[in-house]
Parts: sequence; structure tokens; C-alpha cells
Amino acid sequence: MTVTVDGATRLHIIVGDPIAQVKSPTGMSAAFATRGRNALCVPIHVAPKDLPGLLAGASLAQNLDGIIVTVPHKFACYAHCTSATERAHFLGAVNIIRRTADGGWFGEMFDGLGFVGGMRAKGGEPKGKRALLVGAGGAGSAIALALVEAGVRELAIHDADSVRRDALIKRLAAVTATPVSIGSPDPAGFELIANATPAGMRPTDPLPVRIEHFTPDMFVGCVITAPAVSPMVEAARAIGCKTSVGGDMYAAEQQLMLEFLLGGSSTEAGARR
Amino acid sequence: MTVTVDGATRLHIIVGDPIAQVKSPTGMSAAFATRGRNALCVPIHVAPKDLPGLLAGASLAQNLDGIIVTVPHKFACYAHCTSATERAHFLGAVNIIRRTADGGWFGEMFDGLGFVGGMRAKGGEPKGKRALLVGAGGAGSAIALALVEAGVRELAIHDADSVRRDALIKRLAAVTATPVSIGSPDPAGFELIANATPAGMRPTDPLPVRIEHFTPDMFVGCVITAPAVSPMVEAARAIGCKTSVGGDMYAAEQQLMLEFLLGGSSTEAGARR
Repeated sequence: MTVTVDGATRLHIIVGDPIAQVKSPTGMSAAFATRGRNALCVPIHVAPKDLPGLLAGASLAQNLDGIIVTVPHKFACYAHCTSATERAHFLGAVNIIRRTADGGWFGEMFDGLGFVGGMRAKGGEPKGKRALLVGAGGAGSAIALALVEAGVRELAIHDADSVRRDALIKRLAAVTATPVSIGSPDPAGFELIANATPAGMRPTDPLPVRIEHFTPDMFVGCVITAPAVSPMVEAARAIGCKTSVGGDMYAAEQQLMLEFLLGGSSTEAGARR
Repeated sequence: MTVTVDGATRLHIIVGDPIAQVKSPTGMSAAFATRGRNALCVPIHVAPKDLPGLLAGASLAQNLDGIIVTVPHKFACYAHCTSATERAHFLGAVNIIRRTADGGWFGEMFDGLGFVGGMRAKGGEPKGKRALLVGAGGAGSAIALALVEAGVRELAIHDADSVRRDALIKRLAAVTATPVSIGSPDPAGFELIANATPAGMRPTDPLPVRIEHFTPDMFVGCVITAPAVSPMVEAARAIGCKTSVGGDMYAAEQQLMLEFLLGGSSTEAGARR
């Protein structure tokens, strides 16, 4: 889809390093146009060391309304926010920030909600399920919180890094009554399997879980966008599982980001800092 | 014309205050697309007090290649340049800056060349002519230098502010052998009349020159873009003069800016700071 630009165009940027692969400039700009907004999302390639200066400078642009954040800036951009959702405070990370009426910056983290939204779009429902999450990094943490918020009956978390795995489990235990436990790569007995690791991006990667224990009643979701269908998801589909891929997550997340930037879905009412 | 944007899009910004009226985002973005470049020009609304911070931050964006400058930032942006053309040094102002291979910022001022280019597009040629310029401000100074560079036989400058008029005359005398003198609003005896003041933007404005002394052999040029044809130019056309308007200047200037940003017309070889 093509877009237009003129002197009155409102700006949104996406900050990342690298940046060329990001889909928000095309997707969000098209979504703004579809909504009849004279607005664009443009890419900004900025190194971690330069991020604070970039954000300080960009904030001086009176027609900059929003900032989308991708790797590796999600934690650093949280520090730029003057207010944020409880979810973002819990995660210490944001993937989107919008300018508030008083000139501040209000942050949110939609990665987890995007994953759950992508699942639901493919016929998965976390509520009441026994869930296994592989990966306790930035994406994994966001997904863990979202799965708990969505009402999973139980959440097991596996990560090769036991320190960050245990830290995440401990932090979740402080905010939810949902049982959160140490998981393993074995999906046997779980109803929902979520991969939040990069395992599957390269042909030589090991599989994140023991796919030989997949059963057709399981829902299998994955964050990987390249390849579009990871080997884990391919294996799940082969035996009849419902699945969601990184593209499903992104599609759901883009809708959430659009509503957030246009001011429709989140309020600053519950925000604190 | 519509344009596209994706993660690999190279950015150019135009800084101004106000900004909504500027034409470069549409015009330059379309020109980039026509040249097959994945590049955009987007507007940045920034107040004078915030300009240094904006420029410092924006410079950290690795995919920012160029900065177009409009009022009131042309003098302040000169200070941001690490190198500039002799023309920009003389004027102490730039209307465009591009990033150099070593990460610096190389500035140029095309307002005067744009005016001359607009004249030529409408059949005017400054070389050998007696020229009267009204207005010794930023645009007027740039046009004065360009007229001298283009080979006018003589240049007379009128400005209600005699201090800046005399300062410009003195500075021009230091760089050219062309006779430069104090002018008046009376165009009698001149072959080329250039208005570089805003007189004519509002219906109540006085005319910048005594139009009753226009003769059909005169070329009459004007920098005003709104209205598209100023009352002075209307009067000149009514008696058969060749004329150029602000839109002609902008069209010529856009072509110069495009070549500059794409690296085709200016070299840093002669630059100094």
C-alpha cells in the first residue's frame, strides 16, 4: 500500500538496530492511511549508545506523536517514559510510547498481548490451560505475564539460563496466584506450548522442545517471523495441532499498537512511575 | 503522488516553525521515488529554542541522510554544519545539509540559485543586466549573491532597513567587482527587478516597487508563494513583462536540492570551515 506525506503529516518513528527488517513503517503507515490519518511511521536506525540522545532530540519535534520500539531498545526506552502501564512497569520494558497531552511519554509493552492475540486469531485460548513457555528473556517475560493475565491454569517456564528463569518465576509469583513453575523442553501434559526463543531461525538450530511429545490437542505458538513457519510449528501442524507463528503475533500486535497510538485502547489513568 | 515506506527507507527531514505549509515532504519524496530511491522527506516541527537539541539527536539516526531547512532555522542550521560551500559561508545560512562520508554535515544555500533558476525557466537571464533587488534579509542576501554570481552588470539594493542594506552592499563589495549600490523602490532604468520581501502576501501590503514605472522589457521576479501570483507580478504581467513567481523559484530549488542530496551537483572539495 502506498501512503502520502506533506508538511502537516504527523510522525511516528520505530527505533531499532538493525532496522531494515522491521515491518511497522509499512504496516502502521498503511493503517494510519486506512483510518484517514495524515500520519506516517518511519524507521530510525540508532545504536544503543546513541539511543538516549536520539530520544531526547526527537522529543523536541512537535509533530512526533509516537515511538515504536524494537530490539535492542525495549529496556532502554522504558527509561525514557514519564509514565507507563503496570504491565510495562512489571517488565521494565516497552515496545511502544505515545506522547501525552502534557508532553510526557507514556509507555506500554504489547509483545505478550500480541502473542496471545495471535493465538486467539488461530483458535487458541489460554484461559484455563496448562501452559509451557520456553524462553525467559524479553519476549518470554512479556508472554509469561500475558498468559497469566489471560488466565492460564498453570504456567511452566523453561530457559537454559536458570538464573533468569528463576528470577522471572519469582517475580510472577509476586503478582499472581496462578501456579508458575520450572519447566523443561518436554511438552508432554501441557495444552499450550509457547516458544519465545530464537531457536528455529537458522536451519542448524536445535528444536526448542521435544516435538516427538506433541499431541494433536496441543496449541503450539512461536514468536519467530523468519522463517514464517518455524520447524517446531511445522512439526506441530504435521500432526494436526492448531498453531500460531510470529506473523500472527505481529498482526495482533500491530492492531494493539494502532489503537494505542490513536489513543483508543489504553488510558494513562492507571499509569504511575 | 504516493510514496512507499519500509524499514530500509532512507530519511531526510525538513525543519521549520511553522511546518504544515512546507512543500518539500511531498515534492522531494515524490522526486526520490521517481529516481528509484527508497527515501522520504518528512516534516519536523521544531521551535528555535529546541533546534540545537533536535539536530544533535537526529544526527544520531544512522539512516538520516539530509536536512532541508526553512524559516526560521536557516542561520541556526548553518552553525550545525561541519563544512559548507563558500556561498553558505558568505551568507552564514543554509537551506540544505547532507551527511558526508565521514559523518559530518555539509551545508549549502540554494535560495539565490533557486531564484535565478526560476527566472531562467521563465525566459529571464541575469547576465549583463542592470538589476534592482528589494529586500536585504535572508532571502534577499542569497538572491543578491546569486545575481552577482550569475553576472549581472550592476546590482542596486533597496531595503527599508538601511543598516542591513548597507551591510549587505559592503559584504558583496568584498567578494565581487560587480558594482553594487543603494537602490530605491523605483524600477525605472533597470532590466531585472527582484522582490525578496513579503510585501504582497497580504491584500493590504504596500507594493514593494513603483509598478507604474514598469516597462515591458523588464523581467520581474518575486519570492512570494502565497498568493501564487503577487500583486507586483500581476501588474508586470499586465503590461507584458516576463515574470517569475515563488513557485518558479521553488521548482528550480527543488531540483537543485534533489541533486545535492543525491550527491550529484556539489562537491565538498571546495568546502572549508
